[in-house]
This record gives sequence, C-alpha cells and structure tokens, in this order.
Amino acid sequence: MAGTDSSQALQFRPGPAVILCEPQLGENIGAAARAMANFGLWDLRLVNPRDGWPNEKAVANASKAHHVIDRVQVFATVEEAVADLTLIHATTARSRDMRKPVLGPEDACLGLSAHIGGGGKAGILFGREKWGLLNPEVALSDAIVTLPVESAFASLNIAQAVLILAYEWRRQSGLAETLPFGENIGEPAPKAEVIGMFEHLESTLDKTGFFTTPDKRPAMVNNLRTMFSRARFTSQEVRTFRGIISSIDRVHERHRSKRGKNDE
Amino acid sequence: MAGTDSSQALQFRPGPAVILCEPQLGENIGAAARAMANFGLWDLRLVNPRDGWPNEKAVANASKAHHVIDRVQVFATVEEAVADLTLIHATTARSRDMRKPVLGPEDACLGLSAHIGGGGKAGILFGREKWGLLNPEVALSDAIVTLPVESAFASLNIAQAVLILAYEWRRQSGLAETLPFGENIGEPAPKAEVIGMFEHLESTLDKTGFFTTPDKRPAMVNNLRTMFSRARFTSQEVRTFRGIISSIDRVHERHRSKRGKNDE
Repeated sequence: MAGTDSSQALQFRPGPAVILCEPQLGENIGAAARAMANFGLWDLRLVNPRDGWPNEKAVANASKAHHVIDRVQVFATVEEAVADLTLIHATTARSRDMRKPVLGPEDACLGLSAHIGGGGKAGILFGREKWGLLNPEVALSDAIVTLPVESAFASLNIAQAVLILAYEWRRQSGLAETLPFGENIGEPAPKAEVIGMFEHLESTLDKTGFFTTPDKRPAMVNNLRTMFSRARFTSQEVRTFRGIISSIDRVHERHRSKRGKNDE
Repeated sequence: MAGTDSSQALQFRPGPAVILCEPQLGENIGAAARAMANFGLWDLRLVNPRDGWPNEKAVANASKAHHVIDRVQVFATVEEAVADLTLIHATTARSRDMRKPVLGPEDACLGLSAHIGGGGKAGILFGREKWGLLNPEVALSDAIVTLPVESAFASLNIAQAVLILAYEWRRQSGLAETLPFGENIGEPAPKAEVIGMFEHLESTLDKTGFFTTPDKRPAMVNNLRTMFSRARFTSQEVRTFRGIISSIDRVHERHRSKRGKNDE
C-alpha cells in the first residue's frame, strides 16, 4: 500500500520503546522499524544483534523508516536496554511458569498508554526469531503479553508481533480514530430530483413496453423506486441516470420515425 | 515467537477471503498466508501472480501455513476472484475520487463479521506492492478500507496490511478474547501467614538495628508492610521470604556467639 504523504511532518510522540533481544536477521529489524513507523513508534533498541550494527539489510527492509533506523540504540544486555524504563512488557507465545499477569495486546497497550500518559517510560521486549525470550528476560518484566493467535498456528514473525502491538498502541492511545483520509459520499439529491428521475424512467418504460400487465404496474413501480433509492444518488448521479433514460428515449424515437416512414 | 501447539486441530471457520491482486513477490504471498493462519483465516486467492503459481518463495515464507498455501486459488481477473462473494472491501492507503464509504479496520471487520455471520460471503482486496489497487478494482468493491497509519509514513507491506485486518477480523468476531494461555498468579497467602512474615521481619530488623529511632518505628513498619503487601506473596513465596529472614537471623547469631567467645 502506497500513500505516504511526504508533506506531513514526522511525529515523535511519547510511546513505548521496542526492544529486540538478540535479533538474528537484519530483515526483521528493518521490518520492525517500518512497522513502528507506520503506527508512530520510533524508539527501537537492539540487544546484542547477531550481525552487529549498522546492518544493510535492516536499512533496506525499513523502506525509508530512516527516522527510526537512525535513532536505533544498541546495548550489550537487556538490563542496560531497559535501565531508564519504569514498565516492561515481555512478549511471548509460550506459557512460562512465572506468577506474572498475562495480557492480550489491548490490555497491554491500555496499560502502556496509562503509564506513558502519566509521564512514565515503558518498553516492550521481543525475543529471538528461533526461541523467543529467555526466562531471565521475562522475569525482568512487569507483565507477559501474548497475542490472540490460533493455538494450532501461533508462531508470528517478530516484525509482525511488533506491528500488532504498534497498532494496538495507536488504538489505545486514541490515535486510530483518525484515518489518513475520509470518505466523500456526497449529498444525496433532493427528493424532487429523485422523483423526477423516477417519473422519467417510468414513462420511458411505458413506451418500451416494460410494464406488460397494467395491474402489476404500481407494485413494479414501487420495486423500481425501492431498488434505485438504496443507491442514494447525488444530483450529478441523478443527471447521469436521466441521461441513460434519455438515450433510450432517443433510440425509441428513431425506431418510431423509421416505422412512420415505412408506413408511407 | 514460537509457541505453536501442534496437538491443536486447525480450525476452518467462516471468514473473509483474502484476495491479492497481481502480487509481485512470492515472499509477500507466503508472509500473507502466515499472517492469515496466525489469526484463523484460510481462503487466499491470487489474481494473476507475477511469478505464477505454485511459488517456492511463497511456500518458504509461509513457514508451515500449508493449510492456507495448499488451498490457494489462482484467477486471471479480479472479477473471477470475487464472483462468489456478496461483499467486497478494497484496501488502499490513497484517497480515491469515488463516492464510497471509507472504513478503518475495526468498522470494516465489524461489517464483515455481521455479513459473514448472516451467512454471506465476503472478501478483502489487496493491491500490488508497487502501486496498490487500480481504480476499476476499487470500483468493484462495496467499501474502501484504510489503516490508521501515520500520514508521514503510510506505506505498509502487503503481508502486514493482511495481518492487521486478520487481527481485527479476529477481534470483531469475538475470538480475540481467548489467549493461547492464561496467567497463573496463584492464590495470595492467607493474611495470618503474611502477618507472621511481617512480625518475623520486624523482630529481625530490631536485632540488626534497622530501626534507629524508636519513635519512627511504627511509621517505618507501616511502610515496610505496605511495600511487601503490594507483591501479594503466595504461601510458597512467604516461606521463601521467611527463609531469607532466617538466613539473616543465623548470620546475626553467629556474630553474637563470636562476640560472646571474645568476651571470655
């Protein structure tokens, strides 16, 4: 999906840090950065990335999320990566034998939103592609976050787990109400125009012989008016529709005049 | 994120078809299939995929979403791909000059859920990586769906757009309430055990000389009881904590007996 409006300034609102623990693939780091950018997150932290940093594949896969990539912070340990935070959520698709709250994305982001709204600093931990977060990393966190996936197919790509939480963050922080563009349904035409259109249609259909049985005409007229009313035509669309009817009228006229000549 | 429970049977509930129009990269088709599988969708339709079908890269990127990949249907045109559907939503990040409803993911999926719940068949159209859906494809649809992204960074990868809508579908169809696993916070210990723990702690702190000024002791006891109460220890955790206190008691005893000897 294209649609980026480059005239718009990038926003750096307070939001949770996204902390990737020992990410293996640069592609995933880049895709995570892009997902964050889509929903307005920008604080990306890497703990001991396997292929070091900077990473060309990450840049390539971020598809121009430079404002996230350029701000990436790299840490040697999770402890250093979360040092300044006051709330940490750990994402995992596996149950851990730990007495911690387990939250879905909505509740998790509602809590993050309240914490950050109150001036706190929060972050979300994401684990390794192959085996997720280690128990000591989960133990560091205040709550476990898991996604409402199919139990029979629960494995999410890291960037996609980041995307879901970035999206929920945006919803819970009230930013999802505004879409990038709105609809333009247009004012429906005044009923007088619509009724004029109906009468025009019906008189033409009288000539074309559409109403085969006169006693059925009233019911059929009601059906026609019902089906075309649902479309809620604008004045322009009423004119367009009458243009169609007029073109039928003209065909009809031509045939009648032809027949006239033939009768001479 | 790992966590797939292979013992669980795959579910094929009624849901919207995901229709990718002229997808260019097999990687994206595979990632879309995986995203669908994560949230329980399975009807994937491809319109004229650039590299044909089957596609090895799609299979590789679907990471075992065989139940989606094996059911993929390929069509030559969008018209054929949507022939059996009664409701079509078109995803786009660009405003189109068309008089159609424009919905966010929540409203779109609420509508899909109602339609499918009533026995209707629905689908969601996704456009090409490079330039999205063509106007004739959007014109075919009943509504436009767009995501609440940052205007300054609106371009979503197709698989990620599929993921957000699959996730919202799951939320709006009420399946997101159940997480793959629940929490196990455990019963907090009966207050008698907790108070016993407090008294043990406080008597030990009396010996260690923690309470320097006797008149401040009551207030400090309240603060200690408050901070440890928040943790809502289980009976096991109370025993663990008392073990910590006992170990301090023992150190204290050893020192006193040493001092005793030295006084001889």
